[in-house]
Amino acid sequence: MKVGIVTIGNELISGKTQDTNSSFIARLMTVQGWRVPVAISVPDDEGAIRVALSYCMSMSDAVVVTGGLGPTLDDITTAAIAAAFGLTLYTDESVLANLKERFKNFHLKWTDNNAKQAVFPEGVETIENPVGSAWGYFLKKDGKIIAVVPGVPSEVQRMVPESVVPVFRRKLETETSYIESRTIKLSGITEARIDQILAAVNFGTLGVDIGFYPSFPEIQVVLTARCASEKEAKERIKKAEICVTEKLRQYIFAYDQDTLEGTVAKLLSEKKLTLAVAESCTGGLITDRLTDVPGSSVFLERGVVAYSNESKKDLLDVSEDVLRDYGAVSEQVAVLMAEGVRRRGGCDLGLATTGIAGPTGGTDEKPVGTVFIALADGTRTHCRHFSFRWGRRRNKAITSQTALIMLKRYLEGERAHE
Amino acid sequence: MKVGIVTIGNELISGKTQDTNSSFIARLMTVQGWRVPVAISVPDDEGAIRVALSYCMSMSDAVVVTGGLGPTLDDITTAAIAAAFGLTLYTDESVLANLKERFKNFHLKWTDNNAKQAVFPEGVETIENPVGSAWGYFLKKDGKIIAVVPGVPSEVQRMVPESVVPVFRRKLETETSYIESRTIKLSGITEARIDQILAAVNFGTLGVDIGFYPSFPEIQVVLTARCASEKEAKERIKKAEICVTEKLRQYIFAYDQDTLEGTVAKLLSEKKLTLAVAESCTGGLITDRLTDVPGSSVFLERGVVAYSNESKKDLLDVSEDVLRDYGAVSEQVAVLMAEGVRRRGGCDLGLATTGIAGPTGGTDEKPVGTVFIALADGTRTHCRHFSFRWGRRRNKAITSQTALIMLKRYLEGERAHE
Repeated sequence: MKVGIVTIGNELISGKTQDTNSSFIARLMTVQGWRVPVAISVPDDEGAIRVALSYCMSMSDAVVVTGGLGPTLDDITTAAIAAAFGLTLYTDESVLANLKERFKNFHLKWTDNNAKQAVFPEGVETIENPVGSAWGYFLKKDGKIIAVVPGVPSEVQRMVPESVVPVFRRKLETETSYIESRTIKLSGITEARIDQILAAVNFGTLGVDIGFYPSFPEIQVVLTARCASEKEAKERIKKAEICVTEKLRQYIFAYDQDTLEGTVAKLLSEKKLTLAVAESCTGGLITDRLTDVPGSSVFLERGVVAYSNESKKDLLDVSEDVLRDYGAVSEQVAVLMAEGVRRRGGCDLGLATTGIAGPTGGTDEKPVGTVFIALADGTRTHCRHFSFRWGRRRNKAITSQTALIMLKRYLEGERAHE
Repeated sequence: MKVGIVTIGNELISGKTQDTNSSFIARLMTVQGWRVPVAISVPDDEGAIRVALSYCMSMSDAVVVTGGLGPTLDDITTAAIAAAFGLTLYTDESVLANLKERFKNFHLKWTDNNAKQAVFPEGVETIENPVGSAWGYFLKKDGKIIAVVPGVPSEVQRMVPESVVPVFRRKLETETSYIESRTIKLSGITEARIDQILAAVNFGTLGVDIGFYPSFPEIQVVLTARCASEKEAKERIKKAEICVTEKLRQYIFAYDQDTLEGTVAKLLSEKKLTLAVAESCTGGLITDRLTDVPGSSVFLERGVVAYSNESKKDLLDVSEDVLRDYGAVSEQVAVLMAEGVRRRGGCDLGLATTGIAGPTGGTDEKPVGTVFIALADGTRTHCRHFSFRWGRRRNKAITSQTALIMLKRYLEGERAHE
């Protein structure tokens, strides 16, 4: 099957916003084993939308349209589609009631322009929006199916996999091929190096496609197999996964939908261990990531963002002498921070970061990107020294990633001895 | 002038690579005062390239084509263009000599497939590549001009501004429009409500386009004016901005490239005030945002992620009695957290959050999304109660946003009394 993509919005075509929906949808369709013959971005303009749809339909069996479904004046996608296909518009009363209910629940004031989001072209099948107020819809025309969804990336990322893909899949039940895919998440290695290491594996012979998707600070390796039976597809993926795992084991931290923080949280919960975190250069990013995991209060006792020397003394019992003799960015201070936060929190483990995120504050001896990460378990404290070379935000991101990976390895190492 | 964009490459259309060339070129053209009516991505396929070119030319005065100019078999852009326009191909001997020289200089082994990069359709004007080996070219057809450049982003980012824009500009010396834009960032209001409030303003009469770009938890309102002179464009934007500011002042937190955390950081630094933060439900997100601002160590003394009752007692001096009588998620505890972190940090200000981020932990009395935010200045402590209704990550995000806005308003209020 060929699936075309039309993304609509002045912001896409003025360069104001990077259109991430096209590549998200293209990837999702490719992973299903479908081809994307064209992706088009057009402004919020009726004529442009009509021409783009017609062009896209001429090249595709199905089309995904995103954007222009909001309540404001510049959102004209539905009107443009109705005009293009000669359809009248109607208000869906159940969607309208749902919208009003949603506003009530969120304590938002209902204004009449929102009713526009309950207006659809006749004959469509609506698609509920689990995370926003603009519903989408399916439209059938000339044996082709068009899915229209809002353009907010977080909504596209829910609605297209959950609602659009299954309907497209049903449309093509005659195509009996089965697709299996596996995402392997790696950190601490470059894409070029992964490519080089995996060059020895002939994925073609295994009947598996391989793709690399870097998303700082991690890289995703995606294996996809398409064949007649589910069993065959799963077997091919399993073989390919074993090849990748054998060669890159030390860099792999999670699979598929799992995250690094989710993996660490699961390990801590399973082992009934508690954690306290003392952050300097990461500024709270480590605890922010850990507390994104539901139920993290079970293992996370406290976090401390010790930006000043005074706070390192008050909250972590780091001594004045050590701060003076070695400086706040030093192995000695990192060790005392990890031990201090662990002891003060009465926890099993203490994790600490100190470093120079930049852009200023570096010296010849300790340039921007110098980072120390320490992990204390009450018996011993392990500290590592890193030299990162990114901008401030990326230095924070890679430091949090590295700290969580140190913690994960520690937890897995313990488990190995059980 | 209307400039269409065609990006070519299998990697763009499989979702393997994010197409950044389209948005780079779109922005560059928009800044020149030109409009981009369409941006199309197609695979390395002769038919698809031909159709895309024809569609794009029908909507544009000029077209920029990127990608498919490399030496490998799948690079077929030049062959496809020659076939589409019925042009023969020739080898440009001076480009060939230049390529061989380049290989020699870089100590690369010359292989004959590289000679493909010196092959062009007849009648083109070549474009030198200052950073790579694939040259580009201009082609004229039906009074329109087509610029073809390689797809490597770093090469696009040199060749399009340096070589393509000047040629396009000469083509249109009569069109001398200037563009000015202004981004206004708002929070705490829905897109629909903004639209309704601004419906009273006739931006058309002011000669200004308006667009809304929601990016949770903020909404950006973008004003754009195109006219013959820079002065006129700036004046139009100024007038429109005054209209927006008058009606939505309380929701505006920043302009253009400024961020909320950057604005708060600037206010704290200017007023020489120090801050300590105690977070429960936001889990470190507030300090993570503040420490993204370079130089934040000047005002941020400490942050505390007090996830357990024990940590609220140890780090913030919240009393056992209050925790027992009112519960950790309560106005009383929020107030004591803000006051405690301020006093312990010896700071001017203390900011605190406590709440139920979800998905579990809610009760009838305090459902998921219940949040208390407190701000203490040593004289008085102000606490507000919110009921958010999102998922865990969004509840954290909107709580951090609301807390930073409370802090910003406090700092601006103080300034008003100076």
